[in-house]
Amino acid sequence: MDENDKFLEIAIKEALKGGVFVRPNPMVGCVIVKNGKILASGYHKVFGGPHAEVNAIRKLDSKKLKNSSMYVTLEPCSTYGKTPPCTDLIIKSGIKKVVIGSIDPNPLHRGRGADILRKNKITVEFGSKEIEKKCEDINSYFFKNMKEKMPYVVLKLAGSLDGKIANGKYLSKWISSEKSRLYAHKLRAESDLIIVGSNTVLKDNPYLNVRDIKTRKQPSVCVIDLKLKTCQKSNIFSIKDRKVFVISDKTKDLGKNVEFIKPIFKNNELDLKKILKRFYDLGIRTVLVEGGGITVANFVKQNLFDKIYWFVSPIIIGADGISSIGLPLELKNGEIGMRLKIKKVSKLDCDILMELER
Amino acid sequence: MDENDKFLEIAIKEALKGGVFVRPNPMVGCVIVKNGKILASGYHKVFGGPHAEVNAIRKLDSKKLKNSSMYVTLEPCSTYGKTPPCTDLIIKSGIKKVVIGSIDPNPLHRGRGADILRKNKITVEFGSKEIEKKCEDINSYFFKNMKEKMPYVVLKLAGSLDGKIANGKYLSKWISSEKSRLYAHKLRAESDLIIVGSNTVLKDNPYLNVRDIKTRKQPSVCVIDLKLKTCQKSNIFSIKDRKVFVISDKTKDLGKNVEFIKPIFKNNELDLKKILKRFYDLGIRTVLVEGGGITVANFVKQNLFDKIYWFVSPIIIGADGISSIGLPLELKNGEIGMRLKIKKVSKLDCDILMELER
Repeated sequence: MDENDKFLEIAIKEALKGGVFVRPNPMVGCVIVKNGKILASGYHKVFGGPHAEVNAIRKLDSKKLKNSSMYVTLEPCSTYGKTPPCTDLIIKSGIKKVVIGSIDPNPLHRGRGADILRKNKITVEFGSKEIEKKCEDINSYFFKNMKEKMPYVVLKLAGSLDGKIANGKYLSKWISSEKSRLYAHKLRAESDLIIVGSNTVLKDNPYLNVRDIKTRKQPSVCVIDLKLKTCQKSNIFSIKDRKVFVISDKTKDLGKNVEFIKPIFKNNELDLKKILKRFYDLGIRTVLVEGGGITVANFVKQNLFDKIYWFVSPIIIGADGISSIGLPLELKNGEIGMRLKIKKVSKLDCDILMELER
Repeated sequence: MDENDKFLEIAIKEALKGGVFVRPNPMVGCVIVKNGKILASGYHKVFGGPHAEVNAIRKLDSKKLKNSSMYVTLEPCSTYGKTPPCTDLIIKSGIKKVVIGSIDPNPLHRGRGADILRKNKITVEFGSKEIEKKCEDINSYFFKNMKEKMPYVVLKLAGSLDGKIANGKYLSKWISSEKSRLYAHKLRAESDLIIVGSNTVLKDNPYLNVRDIKTRKQPSVCVIDLKLKTCQKSNIFSIKDRKVFVISDKTKDLGKNVEFIKPIFKNNELDLKKILKRFYDLGIRTVLVEGGGITVANFVKQNLFDKIYWFVSPIIIGADGISSIGLPLELKNGEIGMRLKIKKVSKLDCDILMELER
């Protein structure tokens, strides 16, 4: 691994410290290096707070900064947002070289930070393709948001070995592993909105809030409930100050934080793409679809997901269980099924977790 | 780890070299040690051939053997089988201590080897409980056979993420990983008999033989085919000199190596336990159940399996697919499903393999 990649790897580790607290902004990390030695590091700590570059530069005096090199996971910003442009600060600092992990995906800013640095006689370099992919992967939600102006969509499934999410009596409380449960709450903490079908609300009666881990906020909830079977007693309405969207043509009194959204159809199916677009316009950047089988199947059928977290518990339910994918996929071109890639498999106590991507 | 366990670990590695070639005998390995140094090692190489102890002792002269210690994964045999008793050879050899990994599970011989050694002034020691379990695990088929006089039963499932073994048109050729395919053939090579349902024969038309890897023999095949839908053209009948059992009340000409077995029922279900017992009496020690969903479900329902190898391909089939477990389990006591333990998860190229036990 060459020196650029080596220091970008360290910057990635810095970036990850930001966790969910920077969302919907990207996680960014940076290190400042002179004569092969790291003088300072910094990361973007919290949404709206100082950027990684600022946090690193502030740690050093002008003598140390002079002729140093900066390694940063994302192209430095060049515009006034919630903070002044990082390019200005870098130019003033005396840093002579900036090595960038990934280019800003925002079409309006893409490459501009690098250009401004070059015009001010700062050498701009890039890491390898591999490190670029790593820098993009840690912020896949941000890259999707910026490139497509659509929410990043995560499907969460928790099933048995034989692909069931509940037994024939809709009992589904078998995910016993504490680690699985905490991981599921982490996924919620990373999301702005949790989407479920009305059956999940009626059968499981979940709260759909983040518990037992630190979070920047409680995600909003959306229930797809065309026949409006949900009632005010459902636990999802009991979380204070949390917005709940209900997709239904009908309306009824479900409390003060509830907003009804009229369903949009295409070929007799709910047009989830239009609904997601609408949520994007409302500021939703990451969506977590938590079930049930029919809701998840609709997102799979309509090809509207970026990542799947599939928890498998070592239990066999049998043929009378409820399917994790509750609809036929009706694939064209004689495809047997929808092929994915297993990005990672982890053991979470007695369960396993597969991270899947297209 | 103490010295006994340390050398038994090395003996286990020796034992594993025997692989399928020693079956239905156990894999056994041994090392001979003096002054903390390994002087010789040996393993049971092939069914009917010399035991591990013999292979190790033969490598050393009487001077070296004198006052040495032997570490052996399984209690030395004390009876005339296909070879003379190992205890005799050990007593004559000059070995002064024998450390045993696991006791012979055969109720007729259990502990006798150790007793004979002690009576001949050889010190007998054992490894820890952990090493004992490891020594038993590598020969789980042998321990089951000896203790219960029943075949060791392995279920093999190959399914999609959503637990389907085929799409709605019974197409199932999606296991693409070369490693998965080879692993499946290894499971066949470890078996004396492969059991399938008639649907698997009719829909997939498999050969059910061992291909592309070394094997000591081709396993026999059993088709559960109560309505006798199988016909002579099926590929399972095309493997030369391979026995095929057909479980059916009816008979028809299916070729010369075919034997019909009358089905036995209990509570309107095929009594698989009695059928397995019958196969044990015919010399079958390890059975591999390869499907389909109903056959596998019957073995699960009747609690007649020792291990499951569950291959998962990263594909979603959808609700019209064929279930991996094709029947309700009808569990008593309000159990949601049958709980298992994931012993190991491996990535086989794009697929994953879960090894499950009770």
